[in-house]
Amino acid sequence: MSKSVFLDDLEIGQSWHGGPIEMTEADIIRFASEYDPQPMHIDTATAASGRFGGIIASGWHVAAVVMRDFVEKAPFGDTPLLGLKIDDLQWRLAVRPGDLLSITREVIDIARSKSKPDRGVLTMQMTVANQDGAVVMSFVNLMQMPTRPR
Amino acid sequence: MSKSVFLDDLEIGQSWHGGPIEMTEADIIRFASEYDPQPMHIDTATAASGRFGGIIASGWHVAAVVMRDFVEKAPFGDTPLLGLKIDDLQWRLAVRPGDLLSITREVIDIARSKSKPDRGVLTMQMTVANQDGAVVMSFVNLMQMPTRPR
Repeated sequence: MSKSVFLDDLEIGQSWHGGPIEMTEADIIRFASEYDPQPMHIDTATAASGRFGGIIASGWHVAAVVMRDFVEKAPFGDTPLLGLKIDDLQWRLAVRPGDLLSITREVIDIARSKSKPDRGVLTMQMTVANQDGAVVMSFVNLMQMPTRPR
Repeated sequence: MSKSVFLDDLEIGQSWHGGPIEMTEADIIRFASEYDPQPMHIDTATAASGRFGGIIASGWHVAAVVMRDFVEKAPFGDTPLLGLKIDDLQWRLAVRPGDLLSITREVIDIARSKSKPDRGVLTMQMTVANQDGAVVMSFVNLMQMPTRPR
């Protein structure tokens, strides 16, 4: 039986680590070919002579693999993670083939609903770094989370 | 030869329409199986008895198909779209199999860089609606954009 973590169980400042996630050239091209088919993401020859000197991952691809890691790591057990809002999502540095990403997820706010006592909003700061420790992406994630049934 | 649109060519209030994008059950399950494998996105039986009464698309999937539509519609020609930041990304309503999404993209701010005159930041409000006209997702997108070469 898998555990469930409820809003009541969490504390501000609590954090979890995710990754490592390897960004392969094949995965970068495959994602971008379907969802962000710009030359800088899918065309190695054009990208090589472009601004970044090679292909870089679509920012949405980085966001997607960070989500997958969250589901796999399951810090909250089988509690459904219903995303409500993302704020201040910044792509700070290019993600390139071979990069190995790690993630820090920290609770920065917990708000119980006044009108609906069975739920509340969990706010987390997500920070994604590469193998050099440089931050490549960061965002604030507001999720709806159930409170512990009484 | 494809056109290029530069920051100088745009005006606040200018807008473009995107879509229609059909969200099929197969696509919803395929995206989520790789990037957001929660039962509400991939398991039709479990989802049917769950809160939404059926599977719903991963929010990151909706963001990804909206990006693809932007690249395909290419309102700015072959100008590379370098995403810098997303603010206030909200998933307002569940996206379900069979939903047909349309998009409105509106310029809400234009800021030339003072230190780097060859570029600036374009801010757009993105609004995604379903076939009933209900807004399912919205966000503010800041993109780096080149100014017209002199």
